Amino acid sequence: MTMTNEKMRFWSPEVRELEPYVPGEQPKIQNLLKLNTNENPYPPSPKVAQALEKQLSNQADLLRLYPDPDASVLKEAIAKQQHVTADHVFVGNGSDEVLAHIFKAFFQQEEPVLYSDITYSFYPVYSQFFKTKTKIVPLNEQFEIDIKDYQQPNGGIIITNPNAPTSIALPLTEIEKLLCDHPDRVVVIDEAYVDFGAESAVALVDRYENLVVCQTTSKSRSLAGLRVGYAIAQPHLIAALETVKNSFNSYPIDRLAIAAAVASFEDQPYFEEHCQKVIVSREQLITDLKALGFNVLSSKANFIFTSHQIEKANVLAEKLREQGVIVRYFNKPRIDNFLRITIGTDIENKRLVQSLEKILH
Amino acid sequence: MTMTNEKMRFWSPEVRELEPYVPGEQPKIQNLLKLNTNENPYPPSPKVAQALEKQLSNQADLLRLYPDPDASVLKEAIAKQQHVTADHVFVGNGSDEVLAHIFKAFFQQEEPVLYSDITYSFYPVYSQFFKTKTKIVPLNEQFEIDIKDYQQPNGGIIITNPNAPTSIALPLTEIEKLLCDHPDRVVVIDEAYVDFGAESAVALVDRYENLVVCQTTSKSRSLAGLRVGYAIAQPHLIAALETVKNSFNSYPIDRLAIAAAVASFEDQPYFEEHCQKVIVSREQLITDLKALGFNVLSSKANFIFTSHQIEKANVLAEKLREQGVIVRYFNKPRIDNFLRITIGTDIENKRLVQSLEKILH
Repeated sequence: MTMTNEKMRFWSPEVRELEPYVPGEQPKIQNLLKLNTNENPYPPSPKVAQALEKQLSNQADLLRLYPDPDASVLKEAIAKQQHVTADHVFVGNGSDEVLAHIFKAFFQQEEPVLYSDITYSFYPVYSQFFKTKTKIVPLNEQFEIDIKDYQQPNGGIIITNPNAPTSIALPLTEIEKLLCDHPDRVVVIDEAYVDFGAESAVALVDRYENLVVCQTTSKSRSLAGLRVGYAIAQPHLIAALETVKNSFNSYPIDRLAIAAAVASFEDQPYFEEHCQKVIVSREQLITDLKALGFNVLSSKANFIFTSHQIEKANVLAEKLREQGVIVRYFNKPRIDNFLRITIGTDIENKRLVQSLEKILH
Repeated sequence: MTMTNEKMRFWSPEVRELEPYVPGEQPKIQNLLKLNTNENPYPPSPKVAQALEKQLSNQADLLRLYPDPDASVLKEAIAKQQHVTADHVFVGNGSDEVLAHIFKAFFQQEEPVLYSDITYSFYPVYSQFFKTKTKIVPLNEQFEIDIKDYQQPNGGIIITNPNAPTSIALPLTEIEKLLCDHPDRVVVIDEAYVDFGAESAVALVDRYENLVVCQTTSKSRSLAGLRVGYAIAQPHLIAALETVKNSFNSYPIDRLAIAAAVASFEDQPYFEEHCQKVIVSREQLITDLKALGFNVLSSKANFIFTSHQIEKANVLAEKLREQGVIVRYFNKPRIDNFLRITIGTDIENKRLVQSLEKILH
């Protein structure tokens, strides 16, 4: 904070110490190629717009009424698509809110929650916000999670799978071992990017009473603009999340977001087709970047994590920006020579590659 | 919780103790007269639906992109309507989220936050959630706030004005005295219902560096279904709220909610006309209820708080429900013989009065 202490005298003392999360920028510039926040290059299913139109033409008056605080129709739609029952589903205002509630619900324990040194940068912010004891478990030299490193006393574990920003996925067999290693601790698998080729742990929910899987509609369902995230777990864990949510904000998801998300979950073919498109584009982009001298980590996400054999990442990020292409650069230990680049359409990826060719030659 | 301890062993210990807020029910029954959650009987401005239609026809594809985490266009629209600058505005997912952030940002102090025994029932929930030291200051015998009762050591004060569920307003002169009495403490005025005839403290924001005013679009703007609340304060206090918000959830307001709320703030004539309609209907309803033997507290809100001279409130609530009319009954000390009844349209209020006539005669 640049604010003087005088002006901060009204703040709660612990809030003066908080270091908030910094989201990827949302520039308001036209014709920019925005590959910095892992949004989907394709629009949501056309059924989403249809559902919203229907809400507005039949029921705009209903905006005066509170939404269902439980969002039951949405829970039903998610449950059906995920092959669980609705009592296994929790919904929140984006997976960020779901994750915040997870930290409060499960991780305020005597022993520390464990997570990687290189992972979603909101986790340390939640730890600080909720004063959660925390221990960082470094990724191995190949930027992979080694579950043996988690064999230590803990008050819970959270793993992003595929991990961000590394894009590397942990196989389901490893996750299952982790669940067995810690039967008395909640293990959270944050699957924001799972639909682009990794294996989801939702298949394990019925067998492991200590598993919470967190997903979002922001990436694979192209609904970042509407803020709907969810968790899948056994009902006794969902109950903890509901208790926390109803102690914070009873109605986090609005009527239009509920209608839109339901329509998305009901259009499985569109979902599968567009995830597949992103996967195919990703593989082509990786080939093209390798030809330009980039090392690219093995990706199961809608982004890649890459470093160039010669040119520094921060220099590349700056030069790309000059050409109207924005990618994400993290000035942090171990990864300060990497770029995280969102997969665009084939045309967008080509523009990226052409920009890099210009920069590098 | 009815859950066994066995199943709660995964929960954070303090979460096992939480007693969540219970929102007024949102029944899914047709033809019910719903006077239990203080929603507006009129739809939002037609400009709201137009703005949403425009979003969908021109920009449905944009739902794939995150919203502006700062919701700057919304802050600008609120600032303009409230005659402040945008750096005086904080926005959140309904005023419940704004209030939660307020408890975290300002009230975690050595000394207790002060609020009434009879007021918004979410405050004690926030106190428990954030482990905020709290001292309850009872309303006087007339259910009024007496600001002299607040002359005691405190770590902040929060007052609902008009108060809920009592509907009684505190004059601005009293609020100004309160601000002067506690120059080193944050005083929050929760004005969820202010637009139905009370005086807003926003007029004092420039002169008092310790004042936070909280408002919502859910009542006077008929947008309960879209979850947009806001706070007005000097920038050094707004900065505390932004710090808390960005440590919890960066994007709490979605693209459609932003567009809808902006349209609402831009239609001042509709807003004023419909607030006035509710006020006129309220006064008629009070007259009709008094003729049936009800005592009604002086209301500056879009609801009334009333007890009958003979019939018990819980009995009345039950019998009204049998006739398809839902009102709010709180089984709590001091107010367990009162009903909180939302003001409907004149036709709805007539239906309520006729139902009561049937019950009482």
